[in-house]
Amino acid sequence: MAHALVLNAGSSSLKFGLFRGRHPELVTRGQVERIGGAAQLHLRDADGTALAGTALPGHAAADHAGALSAVLHEVKGRFPEAEIGVVGHRVVHGGMEFAAPTRITPEVLRALEQLEPFAPLHQPHNLAGIRAALRAFPEARQVACFDTGFHRNHPFVNDTFALPRAYYEKGVRRYGFHGLSYDYISGALAEMAPTLHAGRVVVAHLGNGASMCGLLGGRSIASSMGFSALDGLPMGTRSGQLDPGVVLYLMDSEGMNAAEISELLYRRSGLLGLSGISSDMRTLLASDDPRAREAVDYFCFRIRRELGGLAAALEGLDAVVFTGGIGENAAPVRAQVCRGLHWIGIELDEARNVANESVISSDMSRVRVLVIPTNEELVIARAAMDLGTG
Amino acid sequence: MAHALVLNAGSSSLKFGLFRGRHPELVTRGQVERIGGAAQLHLRDADGTALAGTALPGHAAADHAGALSAVLHEVKGRFPEAEIGVVGHRVVHGGMEFAAPTRITPEVLRALEQLEPFAPLHQPHNLAGIRAALRAFPEARQVACFDTGFHRNHPFVNDTFALPRAYYEKGVRRYGFHGLSYDYISGALAEMAPTLHAGRVVVAHLGNGASMCGLLGGRSIASSMGFSALDGLPMGTRSGQLDPGVVLYLMDSEGMNAAEISELLYRRSGLLGLSGISSDMRTLLASDDPRAREAVDYFCFRIRRELGGLAAALEGLDAVVFTGGIGENAAPVRAQVCRGLHWIGIELDEARNVANESVISSDMSRVRVLVIPTNEELVIARAAMDLGTG
Repeated sequence: MAHALVLNAGSSSLKFGLFRGRHPELVTRGQVERIGGAAQLHLRDADGTALAGTALPGHAAADHAGALSAVLHEVKGRFPEAEIGVVGHRVVHGGMEFAAPTRITPEVLRALEQLEPFAPLHQPHNLAGIRAALRAFPEARQVACFDTGFHRNHPFVNDTFALPRAYYEKGVRRYGFHGLSYDYISGALAEMAPTLHAGRVVVAHLGNGASMCGLLGGRSIASSMGFSALDGLPMGTRSGQLDPGVVLYLMDSEGMNAAEISELLYRRSGLLGLSGISSDMRTLLASDDPRAREAVDYFCFRIRRELGGLAAALEGLDAVVFTGGIGENAAPVRAQVCRGLHWIGIELDEARNVANESVISSDMSRVRVLVIPTNEELVIARAAMDLGTG
Repeated sequence: MAHALVLNAGSSSLKFGLFRGRHPELVTRGQVERIGGAAQLHLRDADGTALAGTALPGHAAADHAGALSAVLHEVKGRFPEAEIGVVGHRVVHGGMEFAAPTRITPEVLRALEQLEPFAPLHQPHNLAGIRAALRAFPEARQVACFDTGFHRNHPFVNDTFALPRAYYEKGVRRYGFHGLSYDYISGALAEMAPTLHAGRVVVAHLGNGASMCGLLGGRSIASSMGFSALDGLPMGTRSGQLDPGVVLYLMDSEGMNAAEISELLYRRSGLLGLSGISSDMRTLLASDDPRAREAVDYFCFRIRRELGGLAAALEGLDAVVFTGGIGENAAPVRAQVCRGLHWIGIELDEARNVANESVISSDMSRVRVLVIPTNEELVIARAAMDLGTG
């Protein structure tokens, strides 16, 4: 039976999932970490049970191609019946041209390379994953799915910055990211709560990367993220919203160049920078250091502030959905976010929240608050199957 | 009787106001424009009637000192009884140290010079005005009033960015500006509507510069502006909110340096950049070019989005105040902003709005909407009189 392999290639990691059938079901998932270094391969079955955790010899995962070989060796050894007919790739940036999942041809790959300046820290690694897979599966159909795609129908006011038009024309736009996650949540909401799906919903995707999306009738009309994956909410190590004047100050007064500022804003800011302790929300919640508390306070406050802005874009609010690693698991964060939102009609049920129930608002709450685990890989697997065999 | 001269020195302009008495009343106001070029001096009486509009010979206004001499010559000729005992200066940036109006000493002036990197396009000109006035009035007490001062008690979540703490400690903070205007509005609101003043109010200062401020009990707790005068709302020629990733892109892919990016974001963006037509709201409102319409749409939309964010910071909303040149006069802008705000409890009375009445919300509107003309110079005159003679 046809299988789809889903790949998500980062700078030093390769996450993968193997799915079976036209209505894809997860067979196994895992990742290679520290590619180019002391690489490790982890594999889990569909229930999340660990199947393997293997240190890879240096030469086996020197690059994405090596990592992919190691993954295939492990997967084929355990699931010899798997026939990988399609490969779906997560690609951070589709630019102005690519919204829908797209079969990868040499022309498409060249077009995606042109977008590297838009996402210099992510796009090159995504494309390295694609090149490795094209060599490993020369016969398979390969499909790119874009984190920007779900947002490409934003109205102009949510797509532009107030720069000279020439920049808009050349692609300096508010793309928004985490679109595969929002796509999944929109679909899940349509099944769980069709009336809410038809209304005004803000989804908070809170993970190591974090953003929020305003959905109207299930379609994205606004995002907290803009041109890059830096804007909006603070993240594990990324700054989120920042006055452009700060970047000018760093250039002018601190004499920093683009690479140094990029390193500061992507790798040393966010929860890590503000706390000075950790980028990991679990560590911060467990800490009694006041700086950890302040970093969590800032994170929760910025979520509320973005929620107010997105409610304005939606002209009201019917539901809020929490998803992503923090959104799905950190009850104290959800509680703190919602404590300041009575004014907008949100009342949390503390017991439901602590129990990670699907609906965590009280029965009296005008705005429904939900927790829905996201599944970006399934969105890619579905798209790859549909396009790969259609 | 004691008079106070209020000075507001920009890059090529010197605005001034002459006030009389301990409870200052305006005597005359005006400005010198195009200092260093084809300078002109304009003077009006307290009712706004033009008293003079004079082209100055080149040598008379080659710099701020020359412009101030020309002002004094004109003012003393028309108001020979004026005894200028105090001079109040508008200073854009007070940094972490200066919040309250401060008597200018050599030490204070040196400290303000240290803040020039925080506001490189404004602070040096403000200080040029101070130096000219110190030479012209060696006997007068001179007082600096800060656009950042009113905001200095923001809670930490509205004062910090998610950068490493060292940047906060060295002054990279969300200062907020237009504080003299917000100070005036807060005081006016306390007289007009003490119950609203005690509540949750958002003030939209919409002029060629534009920002919004969240007032709780009359005190600023949040602003749309951050570290510099660039952030937040789009302005005549300034970008407003911008993904820091765009600045990195301009450095990396467009090869622009700090001066070029600064020029782009401060001088060629905003309403001018987006419309390609004009930085002047009156011109854009009168145009039938679709790009003018889109620039106005973006301006009004960003006001709504910031309003949602500030309401979140205030945990609700009792009133909105429009002020500044656009806020006080552009009824179509106010109408367009409010049309998308029914969800938050705003209902405009169109007839009151068109008539520029003080209260422009309907009697049914849960949130009161007001128009209050601002008077930053009066705030400076009061502070200068209080501190100068106290």
